[in-house]
Amino acid sequence: MPVYQAPVQDTLFVLNDVLGWQRHDNLSGFSDAAPDVVEAILNEAGRFASDVFLPLNQVGDREGCRRAEDGSVATPTGFREAYGRFREAGWGSLSADSAYGGQGLPHTLAAAVNEFLSSANMAFAMYPGLTRGAIAAIESHGSPEQKALYLPKMVDGVWTGTMNLTEPHAGTDLGLLRTKAVPQGDGTYAITGQKIFISAGEHDLSENIVHLVLARIEGAPEGVKGISLFIVPKFVPDAAGNAGARNAVSCGSLEEKMGIHGNATCVMNYDGATGWLIGEADKGLRAMFTMMNEARLGVGVQGLAISEIAYQNAVAYARDRLQGRALSGTKHGTKAADPIIVHPDVRRMLMTIRAINEAGRALILWTALQGDLSHRSPDDKAREGGDDWMGLLTPVIKGVLTDKGFENAVLAQQVYGGHGYVAEWGMEQFVRDARIAQIYEGANGIQALDLVGRKLALNNGRAIQAFFKEVGAFCEEHRADEAMAPFTKTLKKGLNDLQAATLWLMGNAMGKPDNAGAASNDYMHLFGLVALGYMWGRMAKIAQAKLAAGANGDTSFLENKLVTARFFMERLMPETSAHLARISTGADTMMALDADAF
Amino acid sequence: MPVYQAPVQDTLFVLNDVLGWQRHDNLSGFSDAAPDVVEAILNEAGRFASDVFLPLNQVGDREGCRRAEDGSVATPTGFREAYGRFREAGWGSLSADSAYGGQGLPHTLAAAVNEFLSSANMAFAMYPGLTRGAIAAIESHGSPEQKALYLPKMVDGVWTGTMNLTEPHAGTDLGLLRTKAVPQGDGTYAITGQKIFISAGEHDLSENIVHLVLARIEGAPEGVKGISLFIVPKFVPDAAGNAGARNAVSCGSLEEKMGIHGNATCVMNYDGATGWLIGEADKGLRAMFTMMNEARLGVGVQGLAISEIAYQNAVAYARDRLQGRALSGTKHGTKAADPIIVHPDVRRMLMTIRAINEAGRALILWTALQGDLSHRSPDDKAREGGDDWMGLLTPVIKGVLTDKGFENAVLAQQVYGGHGYVAEWGMEQFVRDARIAQIYEGANGIQALDLVGRKLALNNGRAIQAFFKEVGAFCEEHRADEAMAPFTKTLKKGLNDLQAATLWLMGNAMGKPDNAGAASNDYMHLFGLVALGYMWGRMAKIAQAKLAAGANGDTSFLENKLVTARFFMERLMPETSAHLARISTGADTMMALDADAF
Repeated sequence: MPVYQAPVQDTLFVLNDVLGWQRHDNLSGFSDAAPDVVEAILNEAGRFASDVFLPLNQVGDREGCRRAEDGSVATPTGFREAYGRFREAGWGSLSADSAYGGQGLPHTLAAAVNEFLSSANMAFAMYPGLTRGAIAAIESHGSPEQKALYLPKMVDGVWTGTMNLTEPHAGTDLGLLRTKAVPQGDGTYAITGQKIFISAGEHDLSENIVHLVLARIEGAPEGVKGISLFIVPKFVPDAAGNAGARNAVSCGSLEEKMGIHGNATCVMNYDGATGWLIGEADKGLRAMFTMMNEARLGVGVQGLAISEIAYQNAVAYARDRLQGRALSGTKHGTKAADPIIVHPDVRRMLMTIRAINEAGRALILWTALQGDLSHRSPDDKAREGGDDWMGLLTPVIKGVLTDKGFENAVLAQQVYGGHGYVAEWGMEQFVRDARIAQIYEGANGIQALDLVGRKLALNNGRAIQAFFKEVGAFCEEHRADEAMAPFTKTLKKGLNDLQAATLWLMGNAMGKPDNAGAASNDYMHLFGLVALGYMWGRMAKIAQAKLAAGANGDTSFLENKLVTARFFMERLMPETSAHLARISTGADTMMALDADAF
Repeated sequence: MPVYQAPVQDTLFVLNDVLGWQRHDNLSGFSDAAPDVVEAILNEAGRFASDVFLPLNQVGDREGCRRAEDGSVATPTGFREAYGRFREAGWGSLSADSAYGGQGLPHTLAAAVNEFLSSANMAFAMYPGLTRGAIAAIESHGSPEQKALYLPKMVDGVWTGTMNLTEPHAGTDLGLLRTKAVPQGDGTYAITGQKIFISAGEHDLSENIVHLVLARIEGAPEGVKGISLFIVPKFVPDAAGNAGARNAVSCGSLEEKMGIHGNATCVMNYDGATGWLIGEADKGLRAMFTMMNEARLGVGVQGLAISEIAYQNAVAYARDRLQGRALSGTKHGTKAADPIIVHPDVRRMLMTIRAINEAGRALILWTALQGDLSHRSPDDKAREGGDDWMGLLTPVIKGVLTDKGFENAVLAQQVYGGHGYVAEWGMEQFVRDARIAQIYEGANGIQALDLVGRKLALNNGRAIQAFFKEVGAFCEEHRADEAMAPFTKTLKKGLNDLQAATLWLMGNAMGKPDNAGAASNDYMHLFGLVALGYMWGRMAKIAQAKLAAGANGDTSFLENKLVTARFFMERLMPETSAHLARISTGADTMMALDADAF
């Protein structure tokens, strides 16, 4: 069975040293999260992940969820009990508003905990993850009555939530959706239609399931301008606010899929189910995007999470597996062979994963902090800056960290050789689970288009200009520092490539949008490398400063950071040139073939 | 269910135009394979693949193989009958020696047919594939009696073959293997030990299974110098040469694995089984490598094969799935949305796969032809050159085309969005099946080491120098040709990068082998790009020449070739710089961490 130990030390390094956690203790929630409290929470969350979530990960994969004739869905053995412990421990309500029973802690902290839980059992962590997204939508767009009725139960976890967007013919293009909502004259709507790919759509973990459903009110305009968002509870709350009468919504079938078997992916049938409009009529997409942004960052976390647990197991195997001798001469002469961690190509795989994970963790927490600032800072500029950063980096984190997360799971599996292909070792499950993160909540191609087609131009490019300025200033600040040169020089080169790519887009994509589409994937990954490189630059600087100041006892952790930072600059950053070269070729060749010539 | 149509036209283009098939009609086997015969064979093989193999591909994945209490293994529904048809049609004996009942046709043709069969059902095609490897080993190293006893049955397919190398503690490092062989005084040996990951180790397709088993004769030296190869038939042939008494070899269990469920991956237990030495005692590795080389090229073919069928289905879906509108303006106003093939990022994925597949096919057939020349040419130089090319390109084809094959299957799956993750569409099976090709027959890291650590230096670098000369001469020859400039300029740049990387290795890896190990993966992929780019250069030249000569009716095929060639040069070749940059950083950072610092 795979092992897992939450990367608490690394997370604390990011929170305390990279983010300067204590600098923010004037903000709501942060004042309750002094460093010792944060450390205790992370340690406890790590233990919970390893002790409660991890042992169910392979069980969930093997058993999957089961739908009975009556449409009810049973989660795998142990999930119910574990979910009860999860609720009791309050892991789902860490950053929820205290007005609804939450603990009001920073979202940044919740993101860190979410990484641990998703590493240990991604399919399981999705149940509360989707609930958090639904909470966010109701909190932002619901009426006071809706909030009062649903949020306390959902924050507690006794009710869970889902997002119902996709229909068989309408995935990325939600304008095509057909599910209809007919006003009943009593303020409610009768919802009718079919939704597919609904994660956690039906299960036995909670007393009620609160479906947030996109539908079209009868007579509404076609396309995306006629879509509204509805709350459709599985059980209609009774007068006392408890789960009451069964609503006309049911799970028609479960999808058989590549991975995340522990999560129930449902076809949901709405047969005149009673729904309540949330937010304004025909403005459902806006409300849905509140959920989506939350969810997209969460999916980026999943990419990191799988990459981290896959890494840890690949390391354990590489230390343990004896095979061949080191190229540089026998290292363990008393053993029949050397452990494979002596081989450079095994190192290459491990170092690659490590370099992405540590920077990815920093980038996620950095971005989550910007999100907290955007909501909680008393300073207008800080709120605006935080919001800009969040908007700009969300597609990058979702797209890049899930692409890399999958690639890293594949690399970690490769370390195992043939054993990686065999189910019992658990590595192939990581690959199968990681794969979905590149697809759902907007396939990564959509993330790239969101970045290139929307986020770059927003507010006249305010966010991207701020990003260039911030990273550029960091390079400039440490330009004369010889110890920092290996990092800032490469980072600056990457930044130049990104700026050149941005200029190219400005010059070539306005009049010819296909040039933007043809560039989008490379641009997103180029951006990701610069953003991760920036994190490495900052981490290297801090490691050097702490070492220079005589870090007590912790020197190897900091020295390892510097090695990994160098590896990132040497081995991963060179890709920025290739991205720029591809971007600059434009769309002509890509679009030249007739559709039927393929 | 996935669709498949064998790429016969493209294969004929490679055979007739790129390889100049008729130029070789003086060689044995080629004289029986005039262009019209080849075309008929390919068409028939394509039909067979689509009609017989393809319908069993998802069945095989879903059902898998089943082991009964008595150790017998049942293949999935339909496999037995289909195997019978396969044998009757003679697909397994195309290029086998006519002395043993084979058809004696060129291996090049067999490689083409193998691609079709592996596309349609990779797990199934492995059964005869392994038999071909075993035939090659017996043919090269067996005694006349062994050949006479085993080869006719194996060529016919009524008996199948396996390779038994891996043990639980001995995978890459065969020197560690423990299976022992005790002389029985009658010329036979008693073989005892356990082998794992034995593909097609036990099944119900054939009357007998001929295991080729690596074992150590009692008293033999330790390490790789004490390993011998044995024939251990499931049923010992009787006096008439038919399957006789049951031998003490059995399938202990089947591995549950990520993919290729239709193929039985067995733990094989040898309990004093009767075995016959093949070739010389203690020289078993040499004999095994005859099988391995055959097998490695076959695995490269699998990479291409999965990539091809995944591509075809992604194309079909991209033409059919309506979602969103073209960035450049609505293309199909009468439909609710445009087919997603109008989107540049979907094109990017399809064109990437296509550009690798078409060049990969050319490279495989080009290399297979070199293999045929190495055996069949009357010219010493041609035989030597063919052998050099085969040796040099085998690890490149295995490593690069399986890495790319997997990545391409992932891209093709991505085209499907959420539907790609759902089992019924079949795309996720391609990803799971393709994954094994990167691992077995020597994990790709081993291929890279074989290339860098062994093949480059062989005969004072004769093979690599010949490769440089050939590709360089091609670029030089067409340097002044303006129409060829877009291709040769980029190819030459790639060749320069490869030469620079080779020089770097010569200067930095002799004294410090870790530098070779740290460079190996990048070097292999850099090599692959140049080799594929060379194929594109040649294909572009031929397409231009045929167009200039007024190709009759076929112009769109040739024009599409030129577009795809340009795409390869613009979008894939830029990676050579990044590879060179990584290679040149050396091993220091990669190897800097303590093993317990990971």
